[in-house]
Amino acid sequence: MKNISTYVNQHKDRFLEELIDLLKIPSISADSAYKKDVLHTAEVVKTRLEEAGCDHVEICETAGYPIVYGEKIIDKDLPTVLVYGHYDVQPPDPLNLWNSPPFEPVIKKTELHPEGAIFARGACDDKGQMYMHVKALEFMTKTNQLPCNVKFMIEGEEEVGSSNLAIFVKENQEKLKNDVILISDTGMIAKDVPSITTGLRGLSYVEVEVTGPNRDLHSGLYGGAVANPINVLAKMIASLHDENNHITIPGFYDKVEELSKEERAEMAKAPFSLEAYKKSLDIDAVYGEAGYTTNERNSIRPTLDVNGIWGGYTGEGAKTVIASKAYAKISMRLVPHQDWENITQLFKTHFESIAPKGVKVEVKPHHGGQGYVTPIDSIGYQAASKAYFDSFGKTPIPQRSGGSIPIVSLFEQELKSKTILMGFGLDSDAIHSPNEHYGLFNYYKGIETIPLFYKYFTELSE
Amino acid sequence: MKNISTYVNQHKDRFLEELIDLLKIPSISADSAYKKDVLHTAEVVKTRLEEAGCDHVEICETAGYPIVYGEKIIDKDLPTVLVYGHYDVQPPDPLNLWNSPPFEPVIKKTELHPEGAIFARGACDDKGQMYMHVKALEFMTKTNQLPCNVKFMIEGEEEVGSSNLAIFVKENQEKLKNDVILISDTGMIAKDVPSITTGLRGLSYVEVEVTGPNRDLHSGLYGGAVANPINVLAKMIASLHDENNHITIPGFYDKVEELSKEERAEMAKAPFSLEAYKKSLDIDAVYGEAGYTTNERNSIRPTLDVNGIWGGYTGEGAKTVIASKAYAKISMRLVPHQDWENITQLFKTHFESIAPKGVKVEVKPHHGGQGYVTPIDSIGYQAASKAYFDSFGKTPIPQRSGGSIPIVSLFEQELKSKTILMGFGLDSDAIHSPNEHYGLFNYYKGIETIPLFYKYFTELSE
Repeated sequence: MKNISTYVNQHKDRFLEELIDLLKIPSISADSAYKKDVLHTAEVVKTRLEEAGCDHVEICETAGYPIVYGEKIIDKDLPTVLVYGHYDVQPPDPLNLWNSPPFEPVIKKTELHPEGAIFARGACDDKGQMYMHVKALEFMTKTNQLPCNVKFMIEGEEEVGSSNLAIFVKENQEKLKNDVILISDTGMIAKDVPSITTGLRGLSYVEVEVTGPNRDLHSGLYGGAVANPINVLAKMIASLHDENNHITIPGFYDKVEELSKEERAEMAKAPFSLEAYKKSLDIDAVYGEAGYTTNERNSIRPTLDVNGIWGGYTGEGAKTVIASKAYAKISMRLVPHQDWENITQLFKTHFESIAPKGVKVEVKPHHGGQGYVTPIDSIGYQAASKAYFDSFGKTPIPQRSGGSIPIVSLFEQELKSKTILMGFGLDSDAIHSPNEHYGLFNYYKGIETIPLFYKYFTELSE
Repeated sequence: MKNISTYVNQHKDRFLEELIDLLKIPSISADSAYKKDVLHTAEVVKTRLEEAGCDHVEICETAGYPIVYGEKIIDKDLPTVLVYGHYDVQPPDPLNLWNSPPFEPVIKKTELHPEGAIFARGACDDKGQMYMHVKALEFMTKTNQLPCNVKFMIEGEEEVGSSNLAIFVKENQEKLKNDVILISDTGMIAKDVPSITTGLRGLSYVEVEVTGPNRDLHSGLYGGAVANPINVLAKMIASLHDENNHITIPGFYDKVEELSKEERAEMAKAPFSLEAYKKSLDIDAVYGEAGYTTNERNSIRPTLDVNGIWGGYTGEGAKTVIASKAYAKISMRLVPHQDWENITQLFKTHFESIAPKGVKVEVKPHHGGQGYVTPIDSIGYQAASKAYFDSFGKTPIPQRSGGSIPIVSLFEQELKSKTILMGFGLDSDAIHSPNEHYGLFNYYKGIETIPLFYKYFTELSE
């Protein structure tokens, strides 16, 4: 590949303008109020893929938000790379914690990003990282250096479980046929420490509802005499972890992959400062499962977290009420070999079984997905490793991520191909949080690195 | 007293229309958005007191909402009755559970109220019960049967702690001088079982805030590695009750008044059906402190209930976030001899002490008040008992209420007089709940009973 950095440098302003335009659209898939915006985003992505050199681009309707499919087939005998990404974003709330409006992108310099970072919801997850692939394609087509075939599959429901993508993949195996799947929706260890994600956690997301009396009650007249759904929900949630922060759901750990001493020692070599970690979060101590380090707790161990809770009077002032209902959204991160549907069932059975008399409990499974592991001896991994080495001057470190991209394990199952997770984000990007941002360095570096993957993957496939 | 029922019968339609007009004003003291309405309600009450025969009525400004004061002094040597009530109401939410808008009063017949009941926020608590006293005064003045002096003190902050009323009372002891205080803000055992409330529980209301990381985090990347404020709050709340539902705050029960076997036996005589109680709430079991009956749990025992909880993502769909903060509103009902300020301090000290490393906890005391007991041998109680006997044909049963009117104990302390709680409401009135209502039978019966109290109190005072 010749002149990548030159090309990127020549067009960097336009590359940024185009991303900013994309970030201005509030494509929040979790909130139906933004339906028009999500649909509009799909149209924009379609146009950009055509401009970047795809021969054929189409908007594929689903029961939910559409999937943008694009392709450039140059030779049936050459390998095919399938790029996956998503154009939807997480809800931005709490809005009051944003320093600038989430859908009015601004470039600001930070200590970590003296060259500037773009602040907006979706800047990193995943519009910014997805768009690097579009621009990488532009470079390869405009300079006639595309070494293989490429297909794009950009969905709009990743943040709400990708349930329709799963159906689409099952029904379009021929169309999506590929030799490797490439995704940039993860992170690196540090700006100067490239890494490739080799493992993802699975996910089971549920919503629970506890119902006590058939109406809200006066806490003076009924307090102490009837089960208070909020107190009960708190007790039930509290009981899901024991004093060592092990999860108490029977059978939860049965299939958990236990890493060997050696593997854990290998993991421990990744650069990590507990002090810096605590400082960045302004906490005086970390917290988690006894017997594991912070990096193990958030990558190779399963977890259970309440993502939201509500019930009773939450307005200004005071109201002496006993609520009729209390609710919580709870998600469990799973590790390889834990089946998300099985775990969801174990949760439901256990949670319903611990409800005390006097309340009714309902558990509604939301969505989920399996964990995933990429073998580092695959040519896909090797190609990615060489690409990072060329652009960063360092061999990337393989690392397990605590995050989940449920669809990845489904790709392997349905399309029989491995996924390479070439992420260029950083933990400090605050994805899913207020003030999400993405370093311009990372954005441009990603655009420069991706074509090298195509080059090496094609060479290694010969 | 002559022709009470005749007079009430002649004017019943107007009495109802005037109450409906009062109920149409959303005087929600807890929500500053309704400030204008609360202030307007005070003006309406002032006008009604003048029309009812008060010689002098004024709106007394406070740091918060004003207090409406009115009086009719006929003879300095006759006893003086001070009527207390409140014109503010509880917030109506959750609105979706109301069958008709909370501030658009409608009359509907129910199984319990074949004559009809008025459905609206404040119908019973306390606009309906307070207005009975205004109409009782009208009867006595229009028929020249007022046997003693009367003073009215109607406040607008009862639902938010009466903090400014407390200051007003301390600063106006001469103006408020009286021989007995009369309040209708409680209930009767049943429509045909009159009762007089002889005890009230005290209250301590606090708001707690648990802060973990300095921003919302991605539950995949951080899940399991940092303290989740919602999980922690749930654990802390759960720990406030032990397996017997005793409250675990050190020192909480130290001053609790323990009733004798005899007193508990006396209480147990009040008609009560546990099956009907469970049926009315649609619960399969009651729940509470081991060793006590339902009627004891909600009257002579202190309690701790979460009145509201919130944190994280509570919107549509799913968001895999670990919230930076979680909140709860918690209130404790107290029994005689428990000092609310002491209990608030014990709660604060204990709650802060059980916070695990990795989170910061803040406890904000909201408001509170002491419990209260009325001696049944006082002439005030005797006068009320005779009044009920005349209008209901039955001697009323003395009963302890689980509710709180914090100001009552302050009245005794500052004004050196006893309070008589002549309540005409019913548990089924759903005060503080959606579809609050007040039976027309109770409303008119109250107007007929109150003048009899004036008569007997004056006679017994001679």
